[in-house]
Amino acid sequence: MTKPFQRVAIVGAGSIGLYYGMRLALAGSDVRFLMRGDLDAVRSRGTLRLRDGAETSELKNPSVFAAPAEIGPVDLVIITLKTTSNSHLPALVPPLLGPETAILTLQNGLGSDEHLASLFGPSRVMGGLAFIATNRTAPGEVTCFHSGSLTVGEFARPPSARTHALAGQFNEARVKTRVAENLDSARWHKLAWNVPFNGLTIAAGGISTDLVCADPALAAEARALMVEIQLGAAAFGHSITDDFLKKQFEVTVPMGAYRPSSLVDFLAGREVEVEPIWGEPLRRAQAAGATLPRLALLYAILQSMVAHRRPV
Amino acid sequence: MTKPFQRVAIVGAGSIGLYYGMRLALAGSDVRFLMRGDLDAVRSRGTLRLRDGAETSELKNPSVFAAPAEIGPVDLVIITLKTTSNSHLPALVPPLLGPETAILTLQNGLGSDEHLASLFGPSRVMGGLAFIATNRTAPGEVTCFHSGSLTVGEFARPPSARTHALAGQFNEARVKTRVAENLDSARWHKLAWNVPFNGLTIAAGGISTDLVCADPALAAEARALMVEIQLGAAAFGHSITDDFLKKQFEVTVPMGAYRPSSLVDFLAGREVEVEPIWGEPLRRAQAAGATLPRLALLYAILQSMVAHRRPV
Repeated sequence: MTKPFQRVAIVGAGSIGLYYGMRLALAGSDVRFLMRGDLDAVRSRGTLRLRDGAETSELKNPSVFAAPAEIGPVDLVIITLKTTSNSHLPALVPPLLGPETAILTLQNGLGSDEHLASLFGPSRVMGGLAFIATNRTAPGEVTCFHSGSLTVGEFARPPSARTHALAGQFNEARVKTRVAENLDSARWHKLAWNVPFNGLTIAAGGISTDLVCADPALAAEARALMVEIQLGAAAFGHSITDDFLKKQFEVTVPMGAYRPSSLVDFLAGREVEVEPIWGEPLRRAQAAGATLPRLALLYAILQSMVAHRRPV
Repeated sequence: MTKPFQRVAIVGAGSIGLYYGMRLALAGSDVRFLMRGDLDAVRSRGTLRLRDGAETSELKNPSVFAAPAEIGPVDLVIITLKTTSNSHLPALVPPLLGPETAILTLQNGLGSDEHLASLFGPSRVMGGLAFIATNRTAPGEVTCFHSGSLTVGEFARPPSARTHALAGQFNEARVKTRVAENLDSARWHKLAWNVPFNGLTIAAGGISTDLVCADPALAAEARALMVEIQLGAAAFGHSITDDFLKKQFEVTVPMGAYRPSSLVDFLAGREVEVEPIWGEPLRRAQAAGATLPRLALLYAILQSMVAHRRPV
């Protein structure tokens, strides 16, 4: 049976791109992965691999490509590129676009929806939020520690038939997916986790999330950073409840010694998505009149840590 | 000519202890240095050395000792031990005390005056603040990058004849010294430098003070941390002026690529004085009803960084 978005291109085959691309492919979509570093290793092995709990799935003879022109137009482009590589988007995306192609960005933080809308027109753009804990554990291999859920929505407009169709396609692919009434609100909600946990695990000494939760001073600061995000969101009319903040700790504790993607990137000497996760929310909140002193300090520390990082 | 405090013991012969001890000794005081790690090196070389700008001074056959009992009672005990070694004070100080012996603590941050008062009685205790940039550059050798000034005061009371006598003795020894009317106020004023610069140079990636001043986001956060210290001080009736805050940057820029002592300690894997510089001011300010969000975050980050520091 043909899917609503039968042909899918994954731009950015890191752990998130591999995870969702493999889930869709295993459920019958025609998924084409754009790859760089892992391409040769995947071709010679002939599989992509997904480890999820006790289950390991393999996708044999995956459609992996070095250039978007080899992929051609698809029904859906999923952007899982790191935002620090956004300068490549104007070259990577156009060969994938037909007249009706939708673009779903799963990029972190704030700014990617607007950026894609400015490049390729607002009507194509959908946004998604991956509440998931994954690491790329080998070339073409993703390990999922907490499959969580996916939220999808439309850029600057309410959900439509295609939004629900996309959510249905993901749900059939065993990705628990819900539709966001307001994408911007959903993004601010997700920042309530990313800002404290991605940030403090780096700034507080390269520690995993369990150590943030177990340290009373750090846990209190994580909570206080969440309250600042709550204030920032409120400045844009989005209500984040105290109950939601409490839940951020409840979902984090069972994750154990988890290293958020930003920490993994930092420790590996790779670029860190400082601007979408900390810089852009701070600037938007300040422009809206909110005062977020802890976020301001954390942002300044993180951008300096990344700039002055010693070779690893 | 005999000095008001002719016999002086230096407890803690790091860079600050060496600097002030040598200045007093070179001007004629009988200064006895309590040493541990550097003792053998200094004895075999037979000198202490002070580099200050273009000038290098040597103190030949210095009075260096391994145990306070070898020093015996003096007129003035100068405590330059790191606060993280405070548990040794009850053993180190009593052999140095006669009936009239004064104790001057040059220890960083808040808490050392009260601690010494509780151990040896409040009437002995004087406090000093070293506005100085020094590093210990070899065993028994201190290099001074910015000689700045010294402030001395009395614990929990106004200055008296002995305070002025001590200041006079330092001034004759080429240490520009002033008398503080209120020691606690002077300590809060000094925190306006130490909290941002000692803290951000560590937290922002192990960088020198010039990079904090040159980074617009970090410089703004340094200023904001100073404003929080201003608020904390105000909660105890101490007025720190905006002009004073401005001056903290003006004195720091000419110091160039300076590494505050806390950063040097951190990078060398030694203990860092987190509690007196960040923890105690935060707790006191909070107890007095002040809200210092940036200091709270910086303290939580620093204590975690030190706890989870990787071996160097």
